[in-house]
Amino acid sequence: MRRLEEKTIASKSIFDGKIIRLQVDEVELPNGNTSTREIVKHPGAVAVLAVTEENKLVLVRQYRKPLEKTILEIPAGKLEPGEDPMECARRELEEETGYRAESLHPLVSFYTSPGFADEIIHIYEARGLKAGEAHADPDEFVEVVELEMEEAFDRLKKEEIHDAKTVTALYIWQNRSLISS
Amino acid sequence: MRRLEEKTIASKSIFDGKIIRLQVDEVELPNGNTSTREIVKHPGAVAVLAVTEENKLVLVRQYRKPLEKTILEIPAGKLEPGEDPMECARRELEEETGYRAESLHPLVSFYTSPGFADEIIHIYEARGLKAGEAHADPDEFVEVVELEMEEAFDRLKKEEIHDAKTVTALYIWQNRSLISS
Repeated sequence: MRRLEEKTIASKSIFDGKIIRLQVDEVELPNGNTSTREIVKHPGAVAVLAVTEENKLVLVRQYRKPLEKTILEIPAGKLEPGEDPMECARRELEEETGYRAESLHPLVSFYTSPGFADEIIHIYEARGLKAGEAHADPDEFVEVVELEMEEAFDRLKKEEIHDAKTVTALYIWQNRSLISS
Repeated sequence: MRRLEEKTIASKSIFDGKIIRLQVDEVELPNGNTSTREIVKHPGAVAVLAVTEENKLVLVRQYRKPLEKTILEIPAGKLEPGEDPMECARRELEEETGYRAESLHPLVSFYTSPGFADEIIHIYEARGLKAGEAHADPDEFVEVVELEMEEAFDRLKKEEIHDAKTVTALYIWQNRSLISS
């Protein structure tokens, strides 16, 4: 196996915000040359694949300022420092949609943008959903939408479903239904 | 449908790097309150689902400084300004792996981190692969790895496959084989 690692020579902090931090690292490449790496540090996030008894996927409609666009996403949220990802997933699902899950099960986790960010998302599957009252933060604006599989893929085609975690969850959902059918 | 949009009140540029830019926007929320949004601007990227005649997925092993980890990813690369995404996908596939595709077909596109970045990835499917010589940039260090589907899912479980585009591509590949079987 080839040596691929980069050694850190120096690291400079550029920005320390509410959610992300930015640093620029100087690195030594495997061939001895040097380069720089622009790195966004993020606390990590969780997301939930929640399917109702009527076999509908639970989504939230949300405005995303970086995209200047409103999209449909599976319920998700950032990790608080030290927070257990599964507890965070349970909390976000309930706050954003009102649904409580009897149990949550890890499905998959992935880095969203390994070239420039360390954000990792842990996706859980919610089982045994019970409907209840949503109670989002006063400054959080989301709208719950429930879609059958065919409708969800139609929204994917229309780019209303348009982010990594939701696209992944959609294919996992479909694959499970294909495998079990 | 609820009003969810945020209005930009002010935008401050924080950093303008080789790959990303960072800005902090002040926004007006739907309830009239104000908040700030930390936004990373990225040129966008492409990635390629390439499966060989032997039904193996073409991956590249690559060190990712933000993760301090070497992972297996589908061939991918950043868009140059004004570059056609499909041409970029063709170029990256050939440079990183040596494979030429007879044709490329759009599979799906998604935003990787809609909460803090505008990075979009366009995933293409390569058809009619012909092996050739890889010719990566001198300062780019990648190693080509080809895996059968079961092996690929095993690497996903071991978190060697661990990023959004590759996880998505893997499930799409499985999806197609489930549908066609």
